[in-house]
Amino acid sequence: MPTLNEIRMVAPALEKYTQDRLLGEVWKRPGLAPRDRSIVTLAALIARNQMTDMPYYVNVALDNGVTPREISELITHLAFYSGWPNAMSAVSVTKDVFAARKIGNDQLPSASQPLPLDEAAEAQRASRVGEQFGKVAPGVVQYTTDLLFRDLWLRPDLAPRDRSLVTVSALIASGQVAQIPYHLHRAMDNGLTQTQAAEALTHLAFYAGWPNVFSALPVAKDVFEKRR
Amino acid sequence: MPTLNEIRMVAPALEKYTQDRLLGEVWKRPGLAPRDRSIVTLAALIARNQMTDMPYYVNVALDNGVTPREISELITHLAFYSGWPNAMSAVSVTKDVFAARKIGNDQLPSASQPLPLDEAAEAQRASRVGEQFGKVAPGVVQYTTDLLFRDLWLRPDLAPRDRSLVTVSALIASGQVAQIPYHLHRAMDNGLTQTQAAEALTHLAFYAGWPNVFSALPVAKDVFEKRR
Amino acid sequence: MPTLNEIRMVAPALEKYTQDRLLGEVWKRPGLAPRDRSIVTLAALIARNQMTDMPYYVNVALDNGVTPREISELITHLAFYSGWPNAMSAVSVTKDVFAARKIGNDQLPSASQPLPLDEAAEAQRASRVGEQFGKVAPGVVQYTTDLLFRDLWLRPDLAPRDRSLVTVSALIASGQVAQIPYHLHRAMDNGLTQTQAAEALTHLAFYAGWPNVFSALPVAKDVFEKRR
Repeated sequence: MPTLNEIRMVAPALEKYTQDRLLGEVWKRPGLAPRDRSIVTLAALIARNQMTDMPYYVNVALDNGVTPREISELITHLAFYSGWPNAMSAVSVTKDVFAARKIGNDQLPSASQPLPLDEAAEAQRASRVGEQFGKVAPGVVQYTTDLLFRDLWLRPDLAPRDRSLVTVSALIASGQVAQIPYHLHRAMDNGLTQTQAAEALTHLAFYAGWPNVFSALPVAKDVFEKRR
Repeated sequence: MPTLNEIRMVAPALEKYTQDRLLGEVWKRPGLAPRDRSIVTLAALIARNQMTDMPYYVNVALDNGVTPREISELITHLAFYSGWPNAMSAVSVTKDVFAARKIGNDQLPSASQPLPLDEAAEAQRASRVGEQFGKVAPGVVQYTTDLLFRDLWLRPDLAPRDRSLVTVSALIASGQVAQIPYHLHRAMDNGLTQTQAAEALTHLAFYAGWPNVFSALPVAKDVFEKRR
Repeated sequence: MPTLNEIRMVAPALEKYTQDRLLGEVWKRPGLAPRDRSIVTLAALIARNQMTDMPYYVNVALDNGVTPREISELITHLAFYSGWPNAMSAVSVTKDVFAARKIGNDQLPSASQPLPLDEAAEAQRASRVGEQFGKVAPGVVQYTTDLLFRDLWLRPDLAPRDRSLVTVSALIASGQVAQIPYHLHRAMDNGLTQTQAAEALTHLAFYAGWPNVFSALPVAKDVFEKRR
């Protein structure tokens, strides 16, 4: 990220917005903790493959209490939800931050007991997707069950609520409007409150641009109304 | 940007298309001035975070009569419409071009009188958006009014018509189809002609790819027809 | 691309998924040849402007039997379908791989006889697009005919079936859902089988992320059903 001084050399107004509004105000809004804002920000950066600002925000995340284990899982999660190359770029950048902060293997996820699975809900999801797309792309459907919902989502080092926050943030940040309803419902089932979701949208307006957020608003509205 | 010679080492046909068609023909088409084409190009590059070609096109823009003040405002504007990280990347690249051309603070925007606001139109916009989304994401709605329409859009160093051209180009270049109608109407209210909009689409086919433009064509058609 | 060891330093789980699942399993699935998977991967990387992993995958492509001539044409093709800056980035990266492997001009496409054109089908396409958008953006419509369908698509060094595979992969990878039906039909007219298309979707889930593929599934389903 350019320094405030460097921003001033090109766009003094932007330096002022950055200092007064984004860093001085948005990050301090109630309704979403700084730790959660860090998760939202990292998810947006990885989803959009914007690695220039990444070292700065990985450090901010660690300072805000996101653990190395959680950052590791966040990147692993987004390999699937934003694509492998995005995760690979995130690895390249994050390894230097981890090295500089002497974060070693003992602070990273290790093989451990998966979280319990709600078998009934998963069976219902799998059968719905299988009926829709099982004959269209059997490989996709199989991996969605085996790799995503019976493996990745059950990894214990990132709480399901945080995993959902990562997913929803990445979807909004990359304009994947059609995929938001399922994952926003799931996020709220996993404990994300409506206030937190609304603040994530506000935060993402700055980090992913107004248009992505305005395209997400109608579907968020619809999800909120359905859950009343 | 690779040199024509470097392009030839990988893709001789592409070198020929670049020289004969893109640089030799598209940029010289009537209907949209080279200065405006530079604005469209910079907006597309920033919206898509493509910084490799950016130094070349910032220089072209300055040569085509886009002022440092306008480039500064264009980047500031896109912090909001393409996201902060895109603007930060643009700052990093542009500061070197500005330094090389000895463009100092005296050529950048300074605090100045905001443009007059059409209070009735803005009140109508704010009330429409507030009714739709005021309860969904109050932070987004508040910032849209305070920061965007009562602040950013009134900054005098980029004319509203150019600010609209930046916005519409960024929306088309990043596939934000749902947000095009409002901003294309606004652009034409701000003085962009239909011919200029059509040429911006043609220009963007090359800089943002055919699919983004083909997805924008039906909504552009609809806007043009509604304004007859 | 980070080494497996570097991935392990940040995300041991991701290292395991990469080695066991992506490289050890997905690439070896029947239904789509490694050569075709390389074409799909390069198209996705260029469409999403992800150049960090590009050198690795250009080498993989050459090892899998994609010729320098085909890679050259693939990049040229995507200048139009993903935008010029994406192709320029791909040139910058690919020229170093070509140089390292001593791939010279004699292995690149040269001026040659265009492929025969199905005049009736092209006339029908041109008239349909002309009626829809001829008055909206005449420049776009003209270039679509002259540069794309009567020039680019007839270049002989990338087979129409492969050119279609490149196009469809790029569309899916960049979320251009509205443009998929026309090009998936065209791909299958050009000889891409339904099994191959389904496997391309599976492959792209990993390289462009699950959400892009899930948004493409309904339109793929619709195309497959219409062709029964």
